[in-house]
Amino acid sequence: MEFLEEMNCLIEDINNYLDEYIEKYSGKYMYDPIIYSVNSGGKRFRPILLLSMAESFSGNYKDAIPFAVAIECIHTYSLIHDDLPSMDNDDLRRGLPTCHKKFDEATAILAGDGLLNMAFEIMIDKIKQDLNIKYLTAMEEIAKSAGTKGMISGQFLDIVSENKIISQDDLFEIYKNKTGKLIIASIKAGAVIGGAPSQILKKLEKIAYNIGIAFQIKDDILDLTGDLEKLGKPIMSDVKNQKSTYVSINGLEKSKNYYEYLSNKVLIELSNIGFQEKFIYKYIKMLIHREN
Amino acid sequence: MEFLEEMNCLIEDINNYLDEYIEKYSGKYMYDPIIYSVNSGGKRFRPILLLSMAESFSGNYKDAIPFAVAIECIHTYSLIHDDLPSMDNDDLRRGLPTCHKKFDEATAILAGDGLLNMAFEIMIDKIKQDLNIKYLTAMEEIAKSAGTKGMISGQFLDIVSENKIISQDDLFEIYKNKTGKLIIASIKAGAVIGGAPSQILKKLEKIAYNIGIAFQIKDDILDLTGDLEKLGKPIMSDVKNQKSTYVSINGLEKSKNYYEYLSNKVLIELSNIGFQEKFIYKYIKMLIHREN
Repeated sequence: MEFLEEMNCLIEDINNYLDEYIEKYSGKYMYDPIIYSVNSGGKRFRPILLLSMAESFSGNYKDAIPFAVAIECIHTYSLIHDDLPSMDNDDLRRGLPTCHKKFDEATAILAGDGLLNMAFEIMIDKIKQDLNIKYLTAMEEIAKSAGTKGMISGQFLDIVSENKIISQDDLFEIYKNKTGKLIIASIKAGAVIGGAPSQILKKLEKIAYNIGIAFQIKDDILDLTGDLEKLGKPIMSDVKNQKSTYVSINGLEKSKNYYEYLSNKVLIELSNIGFQEKFIYKYIKMLIHREN
Repeated sequence: MEFLEEMNCLIEDINNYLDEYIEKYSGKYMYDPIIYSVNSGGKRFRPILLLSMAESFSGNYKDAIPFAVAIECIHTYSLIHDDLPSMDNDDLRRGLPTCHKKFDEATAILAGDGLLNMAFEIMIDKIKQDLNIKYLTAMEEIAKSAGTKGMISGQFLDIVSENKIISQDDLFEIYKNKTGKLIIASIKAGAVIGGAPSQILKKLEKIAYNIGIAFQIKDDILDLTGDLEKLGKPIMSDVKNQKSTYVSINGLEKSKNYYEYLSNKVLIELSNIGFQEKFIYKYIKMLIHREN
């Protein structure tokens, strides 16, 4: 299969399973805000990473699907809560009203809570069907990455850093936690489910860290240079929110260079573990040129 | 040991473990709002139920501790989020400023998110140490009760019912989900960990349902008649928030009678399964006369 065809199949699979799981798990009152938020144009970056990693090792991703759905639920909950008036106070997300604008604030808070809880319900059900330590390890990776020592601390640091000039070290601490940890968990959880050997897992963790940082820097670049139509959210929102970004600290040119450097480093490291023919290699290569 | 002594030992144990687990799991940025909220005078009702049920069946509650801590974390997160301005907008909880008043709204949302996530991290760690289906079943009970088909739907219904006169059936739907489900999960999770036989589990579920409803009606009564000092929160807050309660629908006298009826029913049913000498029987008996 051609790469693009393969990617579209994967995304279609992810979207179908997301719909199916949300239908089954979200309960009648939270269904509308949850399905709205999950289907508002996400790239499915994290579930793609998770499923393609599982497939890289085991040849298929069937067993990893509940974890891919769970990680997209967690990602979506974090966006809903980040957009709230007391957080980033964003009205638009991917060109559509944010959850609290479309519904109301209380509903958005509860939909976010519900998505986080649901992510665990989905993973627990899978593990109850097949009590295998690899699934528990995958769930543990995901739980820790999303928690108060991971994504939540990143979001906290991000908020308290608003309107402040921060150092590059502090910025990387935010990137690592707010975006990086969940990306690392996607890759590690997929690899664990696929049966990756432990020495490869360690290498993948470092690669995943760089993918997370590169992804975030690309976001910063697009926030400044992106096309509103393609991006689906107001450009210059970081400037408006007076957020320090890699671009605001280092300038656009240096940021683009560092992004290219990191992306190529990731590709080289993926080659080094023998992944140059794998879907994930081509996917990362494609992402380098993404415009949204 | 005398009952009161036993209860105080149990509460001291719960408090110590809560502190220990929060120290270990909460991360440096979320530690302050989380420890503040968890230690703001809760009765530890749910962890007491969980541990005493485990002990009723197995003779000790050591293995159940992570689950008792987890359920108190989930209960605390739900209070933090319920108190938010867009939800119940409460400034005081148990005589102290609510989390968003003591810290700020963004911190309160993140602390709540963090507590929910932490609850799962704690349970997962226990299960990784001892991969036993009974722990997974306990975690599943807790996850489902807290989710969009449980506690979260109860909170949603509660909010959309504000300023409305609702039927008693709708009210019981709120009570069952908002308060009842987590109480049922506490009792079932404890019983499962203790090794309760399945026919007793079914009976316990019905008993737990009545405990939840009775507990909520007592809350409604205390909201109207309670002593501000003993209660630690403004009385008449339901009236202020224009919330329908069992008392607003049925009047104080009928509510007190129904509360007594339910409590006695619970005691009789606990006797019927041979629990009249158990701690939980004496605890429920004591609760009948609680004034806060």
